[in-house]
Amino acid sequence: MKILALDSSGLTASVAVTEDGILKAEYTVNHKKTHSQTLLPMLRAAAEMIELDLNTIDAIAVAAGPGSFTGLRIGSATVKGLGLALEKPIVEVSTLAGLAYNLWGCDKLICPVMDARRGQVYTGVYTFPKTGSGMENVLSDRAADIGELMAELNSLNREVVFLGDGVPVFWETIVKSACFPCFSAPAHANRQRAAAVAALGELYYAQGRTVSADEHRPEYLRESQAERERLEQAGKNGTDNADAAQRT
Amino acid sequence: MKILALDSSGLTASVAVTEDGILKAEYTVNHKKTHSQTLLPMLRAAAEMIELDLNTIDAIAVAAGPGSFTGLRIGSATVKGLGLALEKPIVEVSTLAGLAYNLWGCDKLICPVMDARRGQVYTGVYTFPKTGSGMENVLSDRAADIGELMAELNSLNREVVFLGDGVPVFWETIVKSACFPCFSAPAHANRQRAAAVAALGELYYAQGRTVSADEHRPEYLRESQAERERLEQAGKNGTDNADAAQRT
Repeated sequence: MKILALDSSGLTASVAVTEDGILKAEYTVNHKKTHSQTLLPMLRAAAEMIELDLNTIDAIAVAAGPGSFTGLRIGSATVKGLGLALEKPIVEVSTLAGLAYNLWGCDKLICPVMDARRGQVYTGVYTFPKTGSGMENVLSDRAADIGELMAELNSLNREVVFLGDGVPVFWETIVKSACFPCFSAPAHANRQRAAAVAALGELYYAQGRTVSADEHRPEYLRESQAERERLEQAGKNGTDNADAAQRT
Repeated sequence: MKILALDSSGLTASVAVTEDGILKAEYTVNHKKTHSQTLLPMLRAAAEMIELDLNTIDAIAVAAGPGSFTGLRIGSATVKGLGLALEKPIVEVSTLAGLAYNLWGCDKLICPVMDARRGQVYTGVYTFPKTGSGMENVLSDRAADIGELMAELNSLNREVVFLGDGVPVFWETIVKSACFPCFSAPAHANRQRAAAVAALGELYYAQGRTVSADEHRPEYLRESQAERERLEQAGKNGTDNADAAQRT
């Protein structure tokens, strides 16, 4: 089984190819350049290195959100294009699950936090139970105030390892409000990696969890700033909210 | 702190750059092409993507063995060249420690196994103790028969996760002779990744564990086939073994 995976949900742009449980290539760049300029050249370069015929892949896995609106749209547009052209199914992987999967087999609760601005994070809580090697979702993916998240984590009362671009932003708050031991993941595992998306993609694909290129939609978890402003303006003007809502 | 890392110890060629605990770039290719053709172009491509001025790095980390003799020599020659030209120190990271560090925080014993041919593996055993997040070495790096390794692991009597290119080669033997639950690491974590070498390199560099480009030598853990044959031949011919040994 050959999986192509993309993650452009944050500052990191990442592409990977796995084949039968082994990584064939990953190219990850965490830099200011826009993904629209980097993602496809990175894919082309990595594919050339491993002499990959794209027609031989079984499915395309994508970090399907949450994350940066523009980043998610670039990722989704890219996999839709590839999926349509190659006639391959899409495997949607939660960006947060992909992040957590970087810490495969970790004995602590895993809490990815992505900076969602305005004091909020995109977050969820994952764990690898003692029995078996599968990852489980303890707290579903959500946009939450950092205070709400910390209250939830305090109620779970377990060691927690944090990762994601929200960690440097909220670390002081996290450490100050935690009633449990806090860890932060090391460099090789604390940001989006397409290889982890591909590895989860392999599992989902084997379970038949695919959508068509047409069906695929990113999961933003909340409205974009433009949509919020449109809805607020529509409310103020007394216009029909249904019209605005239709555009979300 | 900015670390450039290379791993060409096996079939995988991998380059990475970390900065203050965050991965800036990784380019990993696991394909038949020779590393002498791929490693430097991959480094150049990744460096360009992140607009890296090589003069700004603090140190160069390298997977310093064990591994393929040719692969290790290419990696060592490359970091020696870079280290001399840039006047930067070298951080030597055990290939096996780098592999194990892919599974940061894992609650099981971690046993990298690299196929060393002739029924042998390059191996070691690592663990992340409950108290703290540092990795510890339980069984030192060695070349061992797979049977010897399994006897050692049986005496430890813990859950073990295996990774490395020796896993597909020896999996049947491992499962058959193990008296403990065996796991194999998933795609994103079961082969060499320069990002893990860089992450360990950051720790070692902070502890002052560096050598100069001149001083750096890869750790082969056993003689190459050519050296073995030379020594055997020298023994047969009754020539002075010291002469042959000098060349190891």
